[in-house]
Amino acid sequence: MNATYIATGSELLDFKLNRYTPLFSQKLSKIGIKLKYEITVRDDPDDLIKSINFAISNSDIIIICGGLGPTFDDHTRNVISKITGKKLIFSKEIEKIFHQRYGKSLKPNILDQCMVIDGAKIIENKNGTAFGEIIEYNKKTIILLPGPQLEWEPMWGEIEKYLFKKIKNPIITYRFKLADIKEVELENLLKPVIEEFKLDFTILAGANICEFIIRGEKKNKKILEDAKEKIEKIVFNNLYGYDDDTLEKVIGEILLRKKKTLSTAESCTSGLLAHKITNIPGSSLYFKGGVNAYSNEIKEKILKVKSETLKKYGAVSQETAFEMSRNILKIFKTDYSISITGIAGPSGGTALKPVGLVCFGISNKNRTQTYKRLFLNRDRAYIKEASVNTAMFLLYKMIK
Amino acid sequence: MNATYIATGSELLDFKLNRYTPLFSQKLSKIGIKLKYEITVRDDPDDLIKSINFAISNSDIIIICGGLGPTFDDHTRNVISKITGKKLIFSKEIEKIFHQRYGKSLKPNILDQCMVIDGAKIIENKNGTAFGEIIEYNKKTIILLPGPQLEWEPMWGEIEKYLFKKIKNPIITYRFKLADIKEVELENLLKPVIEEFKLDFTILAGANICEFIIRGEKKNKKILEDAKEKIEKIVFNNLYGYDDDTLEKVIGEILLRKKKTLSTAESCTSGLLAHKITNIPGSSLYFKGGVNAYSNEIKEKILKVKSETLKKYGAVSQETAFEMSRNILKIFKTDYSISITGIAGPSGGTALKPVGLVCFGISNKNRTQTYKRLFLNRDRAYIKEASVNTAMFLLYKMIK
Repeated sequence: MNATYIATGSELLDFKLNRYTPLFSQKLSKIGIKLKYEITVRDDPDDLIKSINFAISNSDIIIICGGLGPTFDDHTRNVISKITGKKLIFSKEIEKIFHQRYGKSLKPNILDQCMVIDGAKIIENKNGTAFGEIIEYNKKTIILLPGPQLEWEPMWGEIEKYLFKKIKNPIITYRFKLADIKEVELENLLKPVIEEFKLDFTILAGANICEFIIRGEKKNKKILEDAKEKIEKIVFNNLYGYDDDTLEKVIGEILLRKKKTLSTAESCTSGLLAHKITNIPGSSLYFKGGVNAYSNEIKEKILKVKSETLKKYGAVSQETAFEMSRNILKIFKTDYSISITGIAGPSGGTALKPVGLVCFGISNKNRTQTYKRLFLNRDRAYIKEASVNTAMFLLYKMIK
Repeated sequence: MNATYIATGSELLDFKLNRYTPLFSQKLSKIGIKLKYEITVRDDPDDLIKSINFAISNSDIIIICGGLGPTFDDHTRNVISKITGKKLIFSKEIEKIFHQRYGKSLKPNILDQCMVIDGAKIIENKNGTAFGEIIEYNKKTIILLPGPQLEWEPMWGEIEKYLFKKIKNPIITYRFKLADIKEVELENLLKPVIEEFKLDFTILAGANICEFIIRGEKKNKKILEDAKEKIEKIVFNNLYGYDDDTLEKVIGEILLRKKKTLSTAESCTSGLLAHKITNIPGSSLYFKGGVNAYSNEIKEKILKVKSETLKKYGAVSQETAFEMSRNILKIFKTDYSISITGIAGPSGGTALKPVGLVCFGISNKNRTQTYKRLFLNRDRAYIKEASVNTAMFLLYKMIK
């Protein structure tokens, strides 16, 4: 089975990035449905009709996201009624929920949101008034969802269950989250298992992080689990989690559980590490703060890196990374610390220290370990991102 | 005239964000062409044929990005040949360029990249071997471009010129970059000019930043310029640039020109400000660094905020922001400094200090100015982003 995802909203063509495509693709692939097309279309009924007709002709499942609101530029419901010939009817089921939810403060215009396609299965929107709908039409399944992720994502569980029932051979998926390993290295390492189990796999490469995905029919679950066990043994040194785990989430959970604190000393990444760590709500319970020591003067005066170290080994060296990490731990009085110093480019590289060279220091109370990585032929944004991912993974290895 | 943009590549469905849609929309809209549809499609010839046929039926211009490489999953050229009935021919023009470019190191497989659609206009790819092609077919214009932005963007000038000739009424566009003003306020302020000049306009709202775009036919350039002048007077207090200007770019240029230095003290944004500032290559010439004082302990011990201030006014107060900014300027010995302290949520808010309350301090050698903003009903990511944009704009106002 395959699907088309239609994103409605002129803003998604003109200025706003459509961030949902990979989300839908991954959610669908988890149950064995392939996302075949994604179409973005303006808030224009004619354009919408053409897109939906294309999707109906070329796929089994059509997911339409957006255009369910009560304003003049929301056309999805009317268009679906026109295409399918099914009437729009007033849903007492939704009205009841609105009454329970809003009581006397229920505004009459919200009742417009009770209009649904005749025969549609309704899915409650717990974070908004645009409810989801599943419509069967000419052996195709049309799913209407509100635009905001906060609204449609909580509905997905019910949609997954619905679609799962239609699938003859359900698919299960395992996602391994890895860091500090190159895509090709990973593929080489895993080649024997892939061949032994004839695995259907994907490798998604990020900035010095990777995701390894295997999938197979549910009836072969035992085989997949055997493969999973073997994979875990092989990639043990680079595995930090599964599914939706991120490095900042995983290290946050460990620090919280162990009641330990963290500080950071950043040069080339200048705050990106501290920013990522504090994207986790509640991170103030373990993250005290850090210093962005972009200039050598700050490395010396604030982080107390010895001027001899900077002179002899340079700012980008394991020796400087060592002192940055050791000293921030002491100055900020934390249990752990991370330092990053490198050359993000585009200029500033030399033959001995090219753009992409980055050094790290990871400390606990007793010791400081330093590391060196080279991200060659990469741009500034990648080098900053890869440095931060690597640093978080190196800390993970120390605290796990 | 209108266009469809087709993005090819399974990775764009499965995991990689398609970041080009707004870019193409803005580039096309600049010359008066409306982007009507965007379609993402797998590296599958059948899927590609269906998408292109849809685009040909429903738009005047079809831009196909990707699938021009020499590997087995690049199908664009063959598919276009099939659809249009035009043969693939060997281009001596491209061969000549390859010989000049690579000389004896020219590998035979690169010569496969000389195959083009018969009659196509060739556009040189200065950063790769997949050249662009413009094909006229049944009164429609089909444009083939390589996938990487680094490769297609330098070709756009030539494509723009080509398309511009086809347009009967060329369009010109002015883009105003604004900060620290709400979308609705901006619209109210500009209503009189919009009505006076009957402006065709768009407002793009970001995190406490806005873009105001006006467009009109080239023959009415004089009128548009009069409108532009009036707009500038009205939004003077919130205008920081034009076109592709960003706040980090604009403040970087001023600091560089005036040979001044900057430091930062961040609480709730914890490094995001320093990260943004250092996304500009060469920012080490004016940015010395900063402190991410996520905990009160660090605010007191490192940033020397008085414990009475923290006790009496709280960490999120203009008083604390004042001391953070004043002290980081002194500690880091810079000409200017920025401080941010706020409540990014989701928890930590109170009735008096709700989630979204953020205080700022902006200092030069002689004075420190403090500000307070409230980003209500927003999530953590928005509050961090809006705080950083606001802080950079407040600095801009001091240094401009």
